[in-house]
Amino acid sequence: MAPKLRLRLTFDNGLILGPGKADLLQGIAEEGSISAAGRRMKMSYKRAWMLVEDMNAAFVSPLVESSRGGQKGGGASLTDAGEAVLAEFRSLEAMVLERGAPQIATLSAMLSDIPAQK
Amino acid sequence: MAPKLRLRLTFDNGLILGPGKADLLQGIAEEGSISAAGRRMKMSYKRAWMLVEDMNAAFVSPLVESSRGGQKGGGASLTDAGEAVLAEFRSLEAMVLERGAPQIATLSAMLSDIPAQK
Repeated sequence: MAPKLRLRLTFDNGLILGPGKADLLQGIAEEGSISAAGRRMKMSYKRAWMLVEDMNAAFVSPLVESSRGGQKGGGASLTDAGEAVLAEFRSLEAMVLERGAPQIATLSAMLSDIPAQK
Repeated sequence: MAPKLRLRLTFDNGLILGPGKADLLQGIAEEGSISAAGRRMKMSYKRAWMLVEDMNAAFVSPLVESSRGGQKGGGASLTDAGEAVLAEFRSLEAMVLERGAPQIATLSAMLSDIPAQK
């Protein structure tokens, strides 16, 4: 079985883009709400908002747009920029497992079956 | 400038292989000592040994061999398996930046110059 991958990029402007922010973007796309997306990840409302604000500030165009209030209590969705960032990050993750298959196969073949401590 | 990359793999037998263990292996290769390698990473002696023991147990062949005592107070070095694991991991890291250049360029071009909070 393929190993689980975590990929994290730290950009020149200080933005750290990793599985947490990518999953949050995906959750917002799927749930239509920042708080619901955060809840799904067992993340506090405050933290989910903070991550969204960090991402919005780190890109030229915001990744998430939200509307407060209204009958349904406000919602959030990804902008085109948000969809693009999420797609590029997922593409990078998929690429590692695909193009890195030779290295991963070599490492996997050297592993013992004994459960490791960490 | 290329972003800084962190790559972490969690294998079926529970082994987590990431920058910490890779840097420790590299330090052992360069310093000839587990404690010196740990010191370089500001890691306690105990933790460095623990990580080495985890890695040795997780692979069919140990990655690090150490000799205690002797005139120089014992040393450590990578086995062939250790050299191979380090090389495959570094190769995977380099591959991500190389083959992932299109995705990374797209993401970088969307970033603002404003320093992000995180």
